[in-house]
Amino acid sequence: MKVEVVMPQLSDLFFASSNINKYKEAKKILDEFGINLKFFKCDLLEIQSNSLKEIAKNKAEQAFQQCKKPVLVEDDGIFIDSLKGFPGPYSSYVFKTIGNKGILKLVNQNRRAKFVSIISFYDKKIHESFESKVNGIISKTVNGIGWGYDPIFIPSKSKRTFAQLKNKNEISHRYKSLKKFSSWYLRKFE
Amino acid sequence: MKVEVVMPQLSDLFFASSNINKYKEAKKILDEFGINLKFFKCDLLEIQSNSLKEIAKNKAEQAFQQCKKPVLVEDDGIFIDSLKGFPGPYSSYVFKTIGNKGILKLVNQNRRAKFVSIISFYDKKIHESFESKVNGIISKTVNGIGWGYDPIFIPSKSKRTFAQLKNKNEISHRYKSLKKFSSWYLRKFE
Repeated sequence: MKVEVVMPQLSDLFFASSNINKYKEAKKILDEFGINLKFFKCDLLEIQSNSLKEIAKNKAEQAFQQCKKPVLVEDDGIFIDSLKGFPGPYSSYVFKTIGNKGILKLVNQNRRAKFVSIISFYDKKIHESFESKVNGIISKTVNGIGWGYDPIFIPSKSKRTFAQLKNKNEISHRYKSLKKFSSWYLRKFE
Repeated sequence: MKVEVVMPQLSDLFFASSNINKYKEAKKILDEFGINLKFFKCDLLEIQSNSLKEIAKNKAEQAFQQCKKPVLVEDDGIFIDSLKGFPGPYSSYVFKTIGNKGILKLVNQNRRAKFVSIISFYDKKIHESFESKVNGIISKTVNGIGWGYDPIFIPSKSKRTFAQLKNKNEISHRYKSLKKFSSWYLRKFE
């Protein structure tokens, strides 16, 4: 007698972004947890808000309107204590204009900062967000070659910047928020 | 014989903003041109974009959805040449976080900057925007008491900051964009 085993089938899950590299990083992480992530390339309007979570939720809704499938978006930012959280939700714009050199001019004694990542999931019925952060400090000089603020962010208990650390992707805010999402998603849909 | 003269009647025109002071300033200017501006208090989402015009257009559409009457919104920002236009469309957020002291730390030799104002009109059929700018430089210190970046912006051909000038409201970017709007509006609807 032949027994047919039907494994529970997860529905398609899309990662919405204009940036394929961001998708590749997320895919690699979710693969570890057995989740097959697909790419939905699109440009989403980003609202101006002091809350990363609000921005990500709004983008997940827009993405769903376009792809009509369960969808994830990710947003991140660096928040500097002595600058009232600047550049926070505007990290990307600030990087493109004043850059890391500008940030180093603005930060003096209190160098505490955190990197925050939000994953927002939406499938028309369920809206869930997952936030993770990594605490650290802003370095005094630009150290290492890496994207964005990685060369000026030293995570707690380290002496090196994100750009200098080989295991950055195993400890990053993005890794942690994707891991939180995975636990929830696998429990919910399997 | 009694002759009844019917004057052309402009329809209601609303100024949408969360800030009554911004409305009062606009009302005072439009009164000069014979346009009666009403206040529509509301909170509008602001999209993240490098274009003030896009932000203002999007806000005018949102405002119209809410008030269902011809509506104006105004957006402004200061653009600093040596900082690739920073803080530009994010002037308000940047002011609340790093403030004028932060800006002074970032600007060195080339101090050229411009203040830009956009007025966006929408009445479901017509979408028109009016842009004006005032060129100038960033002062080396904070001078005068005034709102926002006024104490660090010296308009061309002046030695004083906007905050120190008594006639600021007669030469400002906002005055000029509202004047442009008025000319168009009166020609169009009268």
